[in-house]
Amino acid sequence: MAFTFKKIDHVGVCVADIDQAAENYLSALGLVAVDRELVASQKTDVCFLRFPDGGGDASVELISPQGNDGLEKFLTKRGAGLHHVAFEVEDIVQALAELKEKGVALIDETPRIGARGHKVAFIHPKAMGGVLVELVQH
Amino acid sequence: MAFTFKKIDHVGVCVADIDQAAENYLSALGLVAVDRELVASQKTDVCFLRFPDGGGDASVELISPQGNDGLEKFLTKRGAGLHHVAFEVEDIVQALAELKEKGVALIDETPRIGARGHKVAFIHPKAMGGVLVELVQH
Repeated sequence: MAFTFKKIDHVGVCVADIDQAAENYLSALGLVAVDRELVASQKTDVCFLRFPDGGGDASVELISPQGNDGLEKFLTKRGAGLHHVAFEVEDIVQALAELKEKGVALIDETPRIGARGHKVAFIHPKAMGGVLVELVQH
Repeated sequence: MAFTFKKIDHVGVCVADIDQAAENYLSALGLVAVDRELVASQKTDVCFLRFPDGGGDASVELISPQGNDGLEKFLTKRGAGLHHVAFEVEDIVQALAELKEKGVALIDETPRIGARGHKVAFIHPKAMGGVLVELVQH
């Protein structure tokens, strides 16, 4: 294929209270909070957690709804927990075009702007073994 | 703290049919299957997926029950999907001792042998914002 999935960018964890969840990850595991942000376009509050000493190239994203219906439903139905996994791609427009060509079910056919100003788009969980997969172009 | 969480080792995806799920990740995303293994001690069938050209240091683990009650229940209750996230630690015995000292709820107080012969142990989801967190020592 012409485009490449480069790596796991982050693992998204949906929580009701981002500060309380962050505190657990910080105090128990020693992770470091970076890039706390209210993402107005997605109606979410997010906080990225990285490993001490810059360990690893994938981070944990805590995400809390601020009017986001999908995340509110997720919390009501399943409770806090793993929500999505994000893979970094070189060229998200080309990646989406090729996935569509292959018949992969997409939630977004065109990218939108997500946390940290990155271009993001979601693949439908039914195409990925029940996993909500996010594409991210930095 | 004396021990360090180094990085995300893998993201665990529980599926009923490991071959069909792997096919989706391979054909749609171009990931590469490595380390297919029947883990007798855990009663699971697992397959690790990595990124082309060795991209990233975290992988996707597809995991399917082969008599494992917990995973069977997960599939029955929620269907296939994200199951756990695994963090690599330097010294798992020390990590578990320090987590216990901090009052973090543990599923395993002592490590057991998991996939790839690594020492593994699980933190209770209630301590980690609803996320089942695995510790892995290579």
